[in-house]
Amino acid sequence: MNDVRIVVDGQVVDAIDPADRGLAYGDGLFETMRIHEAKVPWWDAHWARLAHGAQRLAIELPDESRIESIRDELIAHTKTGVLKLLLTRGVGGRGYAPPQYAQPTVIFSLHPLPSPPTQALRLRWCETRLAIQPLLAGIKHCNRLEQIIARSEWNDPEVDEGLLRDSEDNVVSAISANLFVLCGGTWITPPVDRCGVAGICRDWLLAHAQVEQRSLSASEVEAADLLFLCNSVRGILPVASLGTRCWQTHPQVTRLQNLLSDCGAGFAASQLPSSGDHV
Amino acid sequence: MNDVRIVVDGQVVDAIDPADRGLAYGDGLFETMRIHEAKVPWWDAHWARLAHGAQRLAIELPDESRIESIRDELIAHTKTGVLKLLLTRGVGGRGYAPPQYAQPTVIFSLHPLPSPPTQALRLRWCETRLAIQPLLAGIKHCNRLEQIIARSEWNDPEVDEGLLRDSEDNVVSAISANLFVLCGGTWITPPVDRCGVAGICRDWLLAHAQVEQRSLSASEVEAADLLFLCNSVRGILPVASLGTRCWQTHPQVTRLQNLLSDCGAGFAASQLPSSGDHV
Repeated sequence: MNDVRIVVDGQVVDAIDPADRGLAYGDGLFETMRIHEAKVPWWDAHWARLAHGAQRLAIELPDESRIESIRDELIAHTKTGVLKLLLTRGVGGRGYAPPQYAQPTVIFSLHPLPSPPTQALRLRWCETRLAIQPLLAGIKHCNRLEQIIARSEWNDPEVDEGLLRDSEDNVVSAISANLFVLCGGTWITPPVDRCGVAGICRDWLLAHAQVEQRSLSASEVEAADLLFLCNSVRGILPVASLGTRCWQTHPQVTRLQNLLSDCGAGFAASQLPSSGDHV
Repeated sequence: MNDVRIVVDGQVVDAIDPADRGLAYGDGLFETMRIHEAKVPWWDAHWARLAHGAQRLAIELPDESRIESIRDELIAHTKTGVLKLLLTRGVGGRGYAPPQYAQPTVIFSLHPLPSPPTQALRLRWCETRLAIQPLLAGIKHCNRLEQIIARSEWNDPEVDEGLLRDSEDNVVSAISANLFVLCGGTWITPPVDRCGVAGICRDWLLAHAQVEQRSLSASEVEAADLLFLCNSVRGILPVASLGTRCWQTHPQVTRLQNLLSDCGAGFAASQLPSSGDHV
């Protein structure tokens, strides 16, 4: 397995222990990171989110410098790709009580970078509602059955992504990406303190663009002037349609894509045809 | 690993694939079963619940007779113990979309039977609230971070179990057991259609005793005449206290314990001192 490293107590080992709590309970966290020129440009942000999640779940964080050296060896010859880091609480006996002294497990895996989209995304609404659980909101934990059920709602290749609402009908995000919506000249993204994931690209946009965090209803999203999705692997993804509602690609999205392409993380500038110069 | 079997496509294999979706997303189900005289007396009920969960999550169910023969070989010399069966969707690539043709993974593991309690249980209320998610309620899936967080609320060895409420303040269950409450002469257990697990021992009691399923508030539980917990490994567990509220062990619980001990699953009749003959 050239493209996988399993790390326990700082050592690369051959196999996952079948008693790993990641397997038993989804008792872990993960990060999915863009590799550019044999580096992970957003590593610090991913590691900070991982540390935050580990603190929330009281999972021990492994020594960062040791993990970085294993990362560097693994991606040394990777120009572009995706690096996934899975951190579990480690091996435990039967029962939910976390072991007092668990040694966490880290699994690195290398994956190809998805091709950039050749057109703006076509979305649908998911019927699956996210449960409201503030204790798990924001962090990228490994309890992802809701996302799996939502993604199983369709297999029409003409639909690229689904938008999720919570059980109180607030719009949260797409299944694998955060959502940004332009309403009345203001970019808005839903909060992630009751469900959803605080995406790294979302954080970057909150820091580098004028964005408001507030709740959005489905009808507000459908009435919006523009939408895009974003995640840390694919960057900013313009949206062409949501069900029967359509949007033209627009300079307001292109401008943010170009801003992101300047950040050094290897995101391309906009390659989509733009429909005009003004909203 | 004498006490573990990993099974893929009917074959016992050496190791868990690091790309198993159980590890990535908790994308699986489990059963924890009591072994008695080298048999699993409640196997049919556990398999039926597993099959129901697999159908809900669209996970392929492995061939039962092949799984049974691996089970029988594993527990052939086990007089008493616990057999855990973990079923995952199997290996998948990156991303939530379930692979079209995944081969599920089964992991059997053998564990010692916990000692029978020497006294009735002392409970506390958990602060952690269960999120309401009808799509996952009832089934014994592997997304268990809520239970882990709840069980991390205390490490006082004088507290045996915690009671969980949902986000709307309904009482649901204990962390690792279902809850039965005697109110005004009627045994009541909370429904499990919005959160919680439909326990096998709970099902047995619903079939063999007069029990009503309805929502319970915390104050109703505290005001109840009697409480007990139950699960398929430990049977019926009398409750001595919940916070400062105390109960005496009672013939109404002893009678159900004795009924359960007659079912052939190896549960002991009541061994606790009983305080009287009438409520």
